[in-house]
Amino acid sequence: MSLIQPRTLKGFRDYLPEAMIPRERLIDTARRVYRSFGFAPIDTPALEYLEVLTGKGSDETDKQLYRFQDHGGRDVGLRFDLTVPLARFAAQHIGQLGTPFKRYHIATVWRGENTQRGRYREFMQCDFDTIGTTAVAADIEAILVINDLLAAIGFDKFTIHVNNRGILNAVLRQLGLADQSTAVLRALDKLSKAGWEKVEAELCESAGASHEQATAILDFSQLRGGCDEVLSAVEPMISSDADGEAALKRTREMMHAVSSAGVPDHRVKIDVSIARGLDYYTGLVFETTLDDLPGIGSIASGGRYDNLADLYTKQQLPGIGGSLGLDRLLSAMEELELIETSQTTAEVFIPLFEASRLGDYLKLAARVRAAGIGCEVYPEPKKLGKQLQYADKKGFKAALIAGGDEFANHQVQVKNLGTGESTTVALTAEAVVKELMRVLS
Amino acid sequence: MSLIQPRTLKGFRDYLPEAMIPRERLIDTARRVYRSFGFAPIDTPALEYLEVLTGKGSDETDKQLYRFQDHGGRDVGLRFDLTVPLARFAAQHIGQLGTPFKRYHIATVWRGENTQRGRYREFMQCDFDTIGTTAVAADIEAILVINDLLAAIGFDKFTIHVNNRGILNAVLRQLGLADQSTAVLRALDKLSKAGWEKVEAELCESAGASHEQATAILDFSQLRGGCDEVLSAVEPMISSDADGEAALKRTREMMHAVSSAGVPDHRVKIDVSIARGLDYYTGLVFETTLDDLPGIGSIASGGRYDNLADLYTKQQLPGIGGSLGLDRLLSAMEELELIETSQTTAEVFIPLFEASRLGDYLKLAARVRAAGIGCEVYPEPKKLGKQLQYADKKGFKAALIAGGDEFANHQVQVKNLGTGESTTVALTAEAVVKELMRVLS
Repeated sequence: MSLIQPRTLKGFRDYLPEAMIPRERLIDTARRVYRSFGFAPIDTPALEYLEVLTGKGSDETDKQLYRFQDHGGRDVGLRFDLTVPLARFAAQHIGQLGTPFKRYHIATVWRGENTQRGRYREFMQCDFDTIGTTAVAADIEAILVINDLLAAIGFDKFTIHVNNRGILNAVLRQLGLADQSTAVLRALDKLSKAGWEKVEAELCESAGASHEQATAILDFSQLRGGCDEVLSAVEPMISSDADGEAALKRTREMMHAVSSAGVPDHRVKIDVSIARGLDYYTGLVFETTLDDLPGIGSIASGGRYDNLADLYTKQQLPGIGGSLGLDRLLSAMEELELIETSQTTAEVFIPLFEASRLGDYLKLAARVRAAGIGCEVYPEPKKLGKQLQYADKKGFKAALIAGGDEFANHQVQVKNLGTGESTTVALTAEAVVKELMRVLS
Repeated sequence: MSLIQPRTLKGFRDYLPEAMIPRERLIDTARRVYRSFGFAPIDTPALEYLEVLTGKGSDETDKQLYRFQDHGGRDVGLRFDLTVPLARFAAQHIGQLGTPFKRYHIATVWRGENTQRGRYREFMQCDFDTIGTTAVAADIEAILVINDLLAAIGFDKFTIHVNNRGILNAVLRQLGLADQSTAVLRALDKLSKAGWEKVEAELCESAGASHEQATAILDFSQLRGGCDEVLSAVEPMISSDADGEAALKRTREMMHAVSSAGVPDHRVKIDVSIARGLDYYTGLVFETTLDDLPGIGSIASGGRYDNLADLYTKQQLPGIGGSLGLDRLLSAMEELELIETSQTTAEVFIPLFEASRLGDYLKLAARVRAAGIGCEVYPEPKKLGKQLQYADKKGFKAALIAGGDEFANHQVQVKNLGTGESTTVALTAEAVVKELMRVLS
């Protein structure tokens, strides 16, 4: 029989323990922070009716959909994000759930993307949303979640860039460019890459702006800084626009509340150029960058929308949500050396020094585990050096070594595998755990 | 525009918070226990080359496979279990990983099953395996994992039924039925449902056993009880069979070590009728039942195999593994009222009593969270009664209530939402957290 080649599909990845352990840790942190604000977990099927998935997606996501016919001849597809399933889910269950409804959803999605762009075809999303309220308190909370989340992961220097689509729209109205907003935003989006002159040209050509209008937009898009500073500069530009005034007021209220809730002012900046896509968001929008690695782009983004599920229900469901960019965060953490690599989840290693003592080693391990410390017993009575080599490769932090002499004296060696130091202690759960706590601390 | 009907595919489920919260808790417990023994997490793609998936599966799993052609015209399929992906993964990476390799894998699998049998087409598996060692220590550890896992979930009365395929095979050899082992095991498997007479008839008809042989097999299959008792009864039946003797010796060693590692003897029973499938397992096999709900079947099963990945590599990879039946466990826990239902992940609720105080409520919430206690602020200034109704429905345990009077006096009410009792404490992080700890304990 010829062998089948063991391989994964292009754009798909195996996660070995060394990659999976920090991944699980990051996901755990996200869950813990989401939960601390009262967001509750949900899950939805990976497979949905095709019509549910293609309803809202763009042409691009439609093209990337993994779609097929199931055993019953139904047209089905693999979800390509968690927002469309949330909309379907909310339309179906919101009566039972009630509002406001706060959920998080951490799950895999699939897109048949062009892998040449360094994208994967299977990746995990990590979303939180508050549905069924237009309250500014929910907007504020989204910013607090992002702040707590990045702090909990271990970041200190990051910036949350916020904007309100209402301000942007009011400025465009004032400039007489409300009807060209899509073309204007598309052009502005290229500013950091294409540069001022090219964007100015595009604004004139594609969006039909005059030279004056284009300059005004570009000047506006450069506004940055602290809350009062930027908002005071914007105010005169939209002074006669009621919606714009409301957006300004809401933004000011949000910024002050975020500050009084304890977020350092320098972490939250107003950036009027942020739009985040062209159609979906209607109020607050935000992106987050790492001050030490701004080039990797936003690692946590989101915004407020007026109507989540209009394709599936007549009930209007406004909401606010955000999403953590897991893969980007992990590569950033790697680059910033924030990841402690290890191939084991347990800290303590017990070599099987004397095969006839297996029961004793197992009993000792059980006692260490009962104290909340992970502990692995090597299964084979190989030479001690070999076993310790394995422990070293895997990244264990301490070893409990006991041979005939130790057992005879009712003792055990506690070895710090980092420093190589050993201490001999009495073979009791209390003494062993106490010394392990010292070594592992 | 007509609405798209929001619905899930037949055999697929949405998990609302009330179902998802205990599910996440159970998965967390499994991970914690697996990790405490040094098992490390891995993940593999949901989609694999079709040839990888169809290589080992039975005709039944092949028929149930969700398969299609991807954008590149490749034949692909959704994984139907985690064992085939583990085999492919091990063949591909074992050189880098080294042995013994201990992994857990908790992930979704898909099978286009007939839903009339009450089966779902999407479900989660929760596996652990030790690969690359034939040591009995790894067998013992599998039993210890199951014991710790069920105890950690909260079960006290459960039984782990163990057997060794080597004993079964030796008995069949002694009876001259080695060549009919598949037919014999298939018949024996029906004993609990079909009854003695029908199985006896099938043994004679399908397996070609004589009346005497059939009676001997059935008598043998009834052996139960403590280790020494059962093994002593089995011993004379296989006394001249070297492989059988070895399996007996190994089983005895395992039982004694499990006992000396601290597992109560009554929890682990030898049950010579357990075979667990016909081909795959070669040594230890085990199943686990809840003493209060034996009818739901095994909630944690597994066994030892000689060669995991022979379809993908010439390297022989023996191993031992087990799997937790999540869905079964959850319905058992529901039936035994072991699940505390709640729709929230946070314990403390802060009503937005005075809208102008939002910043103060947010600051208070941040302090509660900093003490490790989840806390949600209601986003809208509705009537207090309405807000508390929401808190009650969601299952919050305590509320922090502060209006104008309280703020003026620098105080806050801590309300136990279970008993309705309230205490007024100073509006400092220390006093509030201390009182919350008391209420929540």
